Amino acid sequence: MTAERTNVNVAIIGTGTIGSELLNQIKDFNIKASQNGTPSFNVVAITSTRGYYISKDYKPIDLTQWRSLHAQNQGALSIDILLDFLSNSPLPAIMVDNTSSELVAYSYPKFLSKKISIATPNKKAFSANAEVYNSLVEATKRSGAHLMHEASVGAGLPIISTLKELIATGDEILKVEGIFSGTLSYIFNVWSPNGKKGTASFSDIVKIAKENGYTEPDPRDDLNGMDVARKVTILSRIAGVQVESPSSFPVKSLIPKPLESAANADEFMAGLPNYDTEFAKIREEADKEGKVVRFVGEADVVNKSTLVKLEKYDASHPFANLQSSDNIIAFTTKRYQARPLVIIGAGAGPAVTAAGVLGDMIKIMSQVRTRDAPSA
Amino acid sequence: MTAERTNVNVAIIGTGTIGSELLNQIKDFNIKASQNGTPSFNVVAITSTRGYYISKDYKPIDLTQWRSLHAQNQGALSIDILLDFLSNSPLPAIMVDNTSSELVAYSYPKFLSKKISIATPNKKAFSANAEVYNSLVEATKRSGAHLMHEASVGAGLPIISTLKELIATGDEILKVEGIFSGTLSYIFNVWSPNGKKGTASFSDIVKIAKENGYTEPDPRDDLNGMDVARKVTILSRIAGVQVESPSSFPVKSLIPKPLESAANADEFMAGLPNYDTEFAKIREEADKEGKVVRFVGEADVVNKSTLVKLEKYDASHPFANLQSSDNIIAFTTKRYQARPLVIIGAGAGPAVTAAGVLGDMIKIMSQVRTRDAPSA
Ligand SMILES: NC(=O)c1ccc[n+]([C@@H]2O[C@H](COP(=O)([O-])OP(=O)(O)OC[C@H]3O[C@@H](n4cnc5c(N)ncnc54)[C@H](OP(=O)(O)O)[C@@H]3O)[C@@H](O)[C@H]2O)c1
Ligand SMILES: NC(=O)c1ccc[n+]([C@@H]2O[C@H](COP(=O)([O-])OP(=O)(O)OC[C@H]3O[C@@H](n4cnc5c(N)ncnc54)[C@H](OP(=O)(O)O)[C@@H]3O)[C@@H](O)[C@H]2O)c1
Repeated sequence: MTAERTNVNVAIIGTGTIGSELLNQIKDFNIKASQNGTPSFNVVAITSTRGYYISKDYKPIDLTQWRSLHAQNQGALSIDILLDFLSNSPLPAIMVDNTSSELVAYSYPKFLSKKISIATPNKKAFSANAEVYNSLVEATKRSGAHLMHEASVGAGLPIISTLKELIATGDEILKVEGIFSGTLSYIFNVWSPNGKKGTASFSDIVKIAKENGYTEPDPRDDLNGMDVARKVTILSRIAGVQVESPSSFPVKSLIPKPLESAANADEFMAGLPNYDTEFAKIREEADKEGKVVRFVGEADVVNKSTLVKLEKYDASHPFANLQSSDNIIAFTTKRYQARPLVIIGAGAGPAVTAAGVLGDMIKIMSQVRTRDAPSA
Repeated sequence: MTAERTNVNVAIIGTGTIGSELLNQIKDFNIKASQNGTPSFNVVAITSTRGYYISKDYKPIDLTQWRSLHAQNQGALSIDILLDFLSNSPLPAIMVDNTSSELVAYSYPKFLSKKISIATPNKKAFSANAEVYNSLVEATKRSGAHLMHEASVGAGLPIISTLKELIATGDEILKVEGIFSGTLSYIFNVWSPNGKKGTASFSDIVKIAKENGYTEPDPRDDLNGMDVARKVTILSRIAGVQVESPSSFPVKSLIPKPLESAANADEFMAGLPNYDTEFAKIREEADKEGKVVRFVGEADVVNKSTLVKLEKYDASHPFANLQSSDNIIAFTTKRYQARPLVIIGAGAGPAVTAAGVLGDMIKIMSQVRTRDAPSA
């Protein structure tokens, strides 16, 4: 007798850029699954802050109609109601968190304790302070449910899964380093190009990036390095470096001190050109050594240190050859010691990020059986 | 109630370079698993052509003693006896094929039909002719058992898993291309270096590679391109290009025609210098365009074509910047269209290859439950 594979009930929190793209991808996944006679995802609840829909009898929501259904009820569905609803699911259940909310992130242990698995691109829980993070790890172990967050670093790139598999197969991680911000990848690839002398000013490039929508509305939210710090916190912890929080280790900020207090983005942008010469000095220094400048996060497992820094790289180094807004990550391990295992590609964007979440959902589905239902 | 995870019974065929390293890695995996209270692999049978050991009552073999136990019985265990033994396994079962044998590869459907899963670095089944391959795919679908072969391309690099996940999440594969032979990667990286003029002769580099054990005993077994053709056949089929066999599409051979009939490796090596000028012409032509020469396999899904070729690449192209004997693979897809998803690293060697096999075994174990036992 074979333990049968089964459909899975799914609740979606967050219907923004990623959430709505994910709903599309789930719809397409289900069409193929029904053609192949393989299990599919029954979306049974959808909520954002503005509205929600819940399928009381766990009948799958028609995903061609989700927008109008979701508009039927005003406001967000409360976490506790959703928790209660999924706890009674007759099929194995996944809660998908497509928000960047701490409130939602900090509720994961409650879901896990009810045998509800979680898939999410939200960094908050995994880059929270050590106490919150460790208790989440404990809750996951105790529950036997799955907690997956591939898309929290590098979107759809197989970064977390690769790191975890290296560890699971007995490799020893020595160092994890990379360029984890698409925005800062773009800015430095243009400002300090490989193979030719960089001439554009730092402020001009930030301005162009902002105008093209590559930065946050206030570019300081990219330039402060905190997004990179969060990602490197996540990877450090998996790799075995204890990190108290993303602000407990050195993080290079690209915001000139006096501009930290600028009242708004416009004031910041107006002041930035005053620091172009200072930035240019860094570039010239690298240039003299035949190197380029990159903004890099690093987890050094051997020395138990984590940091985010500006670093110079030789023209032949993979970080020097990065294109556009690509991410890159290099794993140096006992088995990949002479030369690291390297992954390169777009590390943000709706389609690849949602695909990272869907990939996690598929892995969870392949590992659960009917008897893993919360109500079983 | 939770459907309990379970130990898995494992039979190992092949105890050469990869098989013996894998047995070491399984031993270490089991030690950690017992510390964590998580499922482990019970190795219950080990065979090569020279000897075998079978644990009749399915009690796990002491992996510190496998060499002496395996020497107890002369000759290979017959496939049918092994099949019969695993068919009665009270736990879910995995057959691990660490040979390069066609005989073993062609027996996969028999194992699958008994609900025995398979993990293997052996390319033979997946690069067999279309009839054999298609019937294997069918047998896998029917069985519900797992057939995994990550290490058959790029050893421990996450190549096949990434390709399959891109497809599963609804991406559309446009092109898969890469440098898949560690030996030919090394030869071309040295012969046609990036950033400086190549001066060493082709035959000298092959000679050095041979002396260092980087090539097959007869280097023609690398230079004929057939190993790359097999790998690109495997990837083409997963990506959706029908391939009749590895010899049904254009494969560039680096063996000068008259040397195909050389009686042995020594005669071949003695003749190779006569063709250095011919090879040098290709390099000079590339050099004039500021390019380097690489030996590349390609599955073009859009044009439904597969081939293995010599190609020229710009200095900034990721293929031009490869180091040593690394493999590289680039997936161009609908979602990674402007710039491909790229994976780089060592694509051969005992530790990373065995880790690729162990990674597959871990994935299989995470997906089976007690009731998936062949005898259940
Ligand atoms: N965009 C990317 O390329 C990318 C890449 C990697 C990771 N991520 C991560 O993916 C997540 C989603 O990103 P996004 O770009 O989709 O953001 P977004 O467009 O701002 O969408 C966020 C969604 O979450 C909802 N939301 C926020 N707090 C909520 C709460 N307490 N309860 C219920 N719903 C709540 C919002 O509701 P309303 O619609 O009502 O406002 C919105 O639908 C974030 O964690 C982000 O860091 C994004
Ligand atoms: N080495 C690498 O870096 C690498 C990388 C990727 C993939 N691979 C693949 O991994 C596989 C193993 O490679 P390897 O380097 O370990 O080869 P190997 O050292 O030659 O070992 C092959 C083993 O298979 C056994 N064998 C052959 N035919 C058999 C049969 N019919 N029944 C039972 N046992 C049989 C041999 O038995 P005896 O010991 O009695 O001779 C030997 O133990 C190959 O498919 C190879 O292509 C290897």
